[in-house]
Amino acid sequence: MAEPKFITFLSDFGHADDFVGTCHGVIKGIAPDAQIIDITHGIRRHDITQGAIILANTLPYMPPSVILAVVDPGVGVSRKPVAVRTADGAFLVGPDNGLLSLAAEELGGAAEAVELACSTYSLREVCKTFEGRDLFSPAAAHIVNGVALAKLGAPVPVEELTRIELPEVEVRDGELAASVVYIDRFGNVQVHLSRPELEGLGL
Amino acid sequence: MAEPKFITFLSDFGHADDFVGTCHGVIKGIAPDAQIIDITHGIRRHDITQGAIILANTLPYMPPSVILAVVDPGVGVSRKPVAVRTADGAFLVGPDNGLLSLAAEELGGAAEAVELACSTYSLREVCKTFEGRDLFSPAAAHIVNGVALAKLGAPVPVEELTRIELPEVEVRDGELAASVVYIDRFGNVQVHLSRPELEGLGL
Amino acid sequence: MAEPKFITFLSDFGHADDFVGTCHGVIKGIAPDAQIIDITHGIRRHDITQGAIILANTLPYMPPSVILAVVDPGVGVSRKPVAVRTADGAFLVGPDNGLLSLAAEELGGAAEAVELACSTYSLREVCKTFEGRDLFSPAAAHIVNGVALAKLGAPVPVEELTRIELPEVEVRDGELAASVVYIDRFGNVQVHLSRPELEGLGL
Repeated sequence: MAEPKFITFLSDFGHADDFVGTCHGVIKGIAPDAQIIDITHGIRRHDITQGAIILANTLPYMPPSVILAVVDPGVGVSRKPVAVRTADGAFLVGPDNGLLSLAAEELGGAAEAVELACSTYSLREVCKTFEGRDLFSPAAAHIVNGVALAKLGAPVPVEELTRIELPEVEVRDGELAASVVYIDRFGNVQVHLSRPELEGLGL
Repeated sequence: MAEPKFITFLSDFGHADDFVGTCHGVIKGIAPDAQIIDITHGIRRHDITQGAIILANTLPYMPPSVILAVVDPGVGVSRKPVAVRTADGAFLVGPDNGLLSLAAEELGGAAEAVELACSTYSLREVCKTFEGRDLFSPAAAHIVNGVALAKLGAPVPVEELTRIELPEVEVRDGELAASVVYIDRFGNVQVHLSRPELEGLGL
Repeated sequence: MAEPKFITFLSDFGHADDFVGTCHGVIKGIAPDAQIIDITHGIRRHDITQGAIILANTLPYMPPSVILAVVDPGVGVSRKPVAVRTADGAFLVGPDNGLLSLAAEELGGAAEAVELACSTYSLREVCKTFEGRDLFSPAAAHIVNGVALAKLGAPVPVEELTRIELPEVEVRDGELAASVVYIDRFGNVQVHLSRPELEGLGL
């Protein structure tokens, strides 16, 4: 049997509209055997930081997959739509606004990147209307089908990819001030704080 | 490998209850290899117009599929439960209240229709308790399995199928008044207005 | 073709967070060909009674499956994490707090049970951080893969499994007082009342 092919999908699309379903439709039209795992579509609207952190935090629990992530306040404007291959051989597709950067680092760091272009590998006519549907979903589906990154667009130097700026942790006289990333359904407060930072306190 | 078989599914069921999951269970019990694509279950409760428009608008992004749509204020009462085959060879299953009409038109127009009956192709004992589960989901699953429409119920003349009444666009002295269909999560206002209507203004 | 393998999944996780997606990821990492049917993740937070009733009520509509259910106010505290085999050959995985008890009864009653242990069949390092992800999802996936219950933990006498206490129905002089389990999206009030109780009234 062929190896299963997974696309893991995270966004701020919510479930009230058809955004998620439409992207699923586009993916299945191109890669009918791909299995889509919806990590979450409940990222706060336009919250790149929450999206980047959850994408990286959930990585250890996902099977090897093409990662599709869309949280995109600047859709169609200032940032590049990209696909990235990491040193570990993983692929990530989404806007180059920092959303992918933490996960890419966990996967060995970006080794190759392209700026996605409207082409035979996008939805041609509507390519820039809703990039999640027209550009990102097709790219993820084509990658899962084995299409090489180089066919999806022009190269981007990996050192030019946007890295997310995380809120800094402040250490003060016996205290530590960290930012709340989000509060989950059960009231758990997710704080942005790495283990080294916590251990460095010598508490 | 066998060709993938898709059921695309739209409703106003929401995700708080088990309606969607129960319909998935029924479908998978009959057609275990069918892939279900949830277009959306966030249609406003009982809003046939929104459902019909979103079903038609998302069609171009879906792979060939049996379409299952349930937005049904008159459940079990005044309208017929139907399955429709279009001139393009597509199938649609749902209440005959106009919900399916725009999508059916886009797919070549209705060529054959049946009124779904309680039978060996429905969930027999509970057939009319919750038609989404007992009648529509089984019909969609049996169609994907290759069962002919004629086995699912008695013929309905296609010219008797209900066509949705869309809100009219009013053109006034340099102005145009169209109805808002819905407002999405990102604040985009979806207006009911076709390209010909817009272009006909000669703006 | 191999027989399809289903995991049916019910919880109070909601869709705003990544809980559901993360559990899907864990399951697919272990059992890539398992099909997951999400019964609902909209159970009221920590409402074991609602979860138990909906799990049992939706059973007739689900294909044969490994049942994974997590509604768990006492997570990591007072109750055992268990996997149960019923007399009918069905499997249920979840907290032993009564959540599984009504469904297990419908499936012939518990015939074998184990207390899930941290092991090579759990996510080893984080095993007790989030049991839905670390203990229950891996157990369900391994069971679907054919792993025997005895490998997942130590036996628990089935008579020690927790049975849910359902709100009693009071019959008074020509009246009947039953509890509301929940009210669905369409305003239907779900009352806890069995057919024998209703018929016993001789109304």
